[in-house]
Amino acid sequence: MLYFREWGEYPMNSLQKRILKDGKALPGNILKVDSFLNHQIDIDLLRLMGRDFYELFKDKNISKILTVEASGIAIACYAAEYFKVPVVFAKKGSHKNVGPDVYTAEVFSFTKGPSYEIAVSKLYLHPEDKVLIIDDFLANGQAVLGLQKIINEAGASLVGAGIAITKAFQPGEQLLLDAGIDVRSLAAIESMEDGNVIFRSDS
Amino acid sequence: MLYFREWGEYPMNSLQKRILKDGKALPGNILKVDSFLNHQIDIDLLRLMGRDFYELFKDKNISKILTVEASGIAIACYAAEYFKVPVVFAKKGSHKNVGPDVYTAEVFSFTKGPSYEIAVSKLYLHPEDKVLIIDDFLANGQAVLGLQKIINEAGASLVGAGIAITKAFQPGEQLLLDAGIDVRSLAAIESMEDGNVIFRSDS
Repeated sequence: MLYFREWGEYPMNSLQKRILKDGKALPGNILKVDSFLNHQIDIDLLRLMGRDFYELFKDKNISKILTVEASGIAIACYAAEYFKVPVVFAKKGSHKNVGPDVYTAEVFSFTKGPSYEIAVSKLYLHPEDKVLIIDDFLANGQAVLGLQKIINEAGASLVGAGIAITKAFQPGEQLLLDAGIDVRSLAAIESMEDGNVIFRSDS
Repeated sequence: MLYFREWGEYPMNSLQKRILKDGKALPGNILKVDSFLNHQIDIDLLRLMGRDFYELFKDKNISKILTVEASGIAIACYAAEYFKVPVVFAKKGSHKNVGPDVYTAEVFSFTKGPSYEIAVSKLYLHPEDKVLIIDDFLANGQAVLGLQKIINEAGASLVGAGIAITKAFQPGEQLLLDAGIDVRSLAAIESMEDGNVIFRSDS
């Protein structure tokens, strides 16, 4: 069962409502949202999320949205529509299709094996770019740190990171804040013990 | 240099025009479209492509769009908006996050190693579904055949395959037609010798 601690005390956004309706909290702090976010995709929800990300970062003169394949792509696209900027998605693993001139970063993964490489072609990140990172989940923060390294190598500016779902009880969010990144989440989950999802009230 | 054999004789669609403007034909029949389609993404183009896919299949009562991560996802989403249906994207490789109840298929890959597995949760494909496959490239057709196997296992109906760019000089398109699939492409490339991209006139 999912519930919201202070239901009704302040308005929830579309993603929070949907998590409570269709998300599944499983043992081991696993939140399954694959009926609407990262396996099956509800386009109407993504559009609402895109608008919410825009509201969070609209004053930042974003020129490009950067994400990582695969489940960040759709979310990034619908945010990009509101900002009217292109999306670039970093490729995972072998990047021979990207070409020889790439920025790369090693990403340590807690769920998918020891580590993997991400790559972005040098053609699509420039020193004048003001980059917003968008991703579906923030838990340990390693993917965002990898993207930050790539943005730094390009000499571009990292304006912030817009995360759909942040597991605020895991170390990633604080790690990114410590790295100077303006992290904002549509749904920051404070705890999910016994299958009860509790959102932090500032998200 | 890219050119269109019969420029002006009939109207090109948005993707064809963009391929001629920004695509790069490299030796070995490689067409680089990563400045607008599968690394950096131009959202406005995707919207126009989505409308073109809708025009091709709008009479087919599509209930779901199926694609494969990663580069098919954005294209599938913008097609899905016009059909007003959800997108499901098959996961590649390890699918422990998908759950235990999955349909799987083995996909032989000519570019990414010997083969890889794709998986779709049984929760998101049903016997009553009329499924449109969307993908960015069709060359050898193996990914679409894998998706067809998954659709068959679910007892759903495969209505057709909408492909952004088909290399019509490679065997995939004929393979899919032989398998009874209604394949339609926004840009079917007849040849790309010496860096000249020639579209087939029916695409």
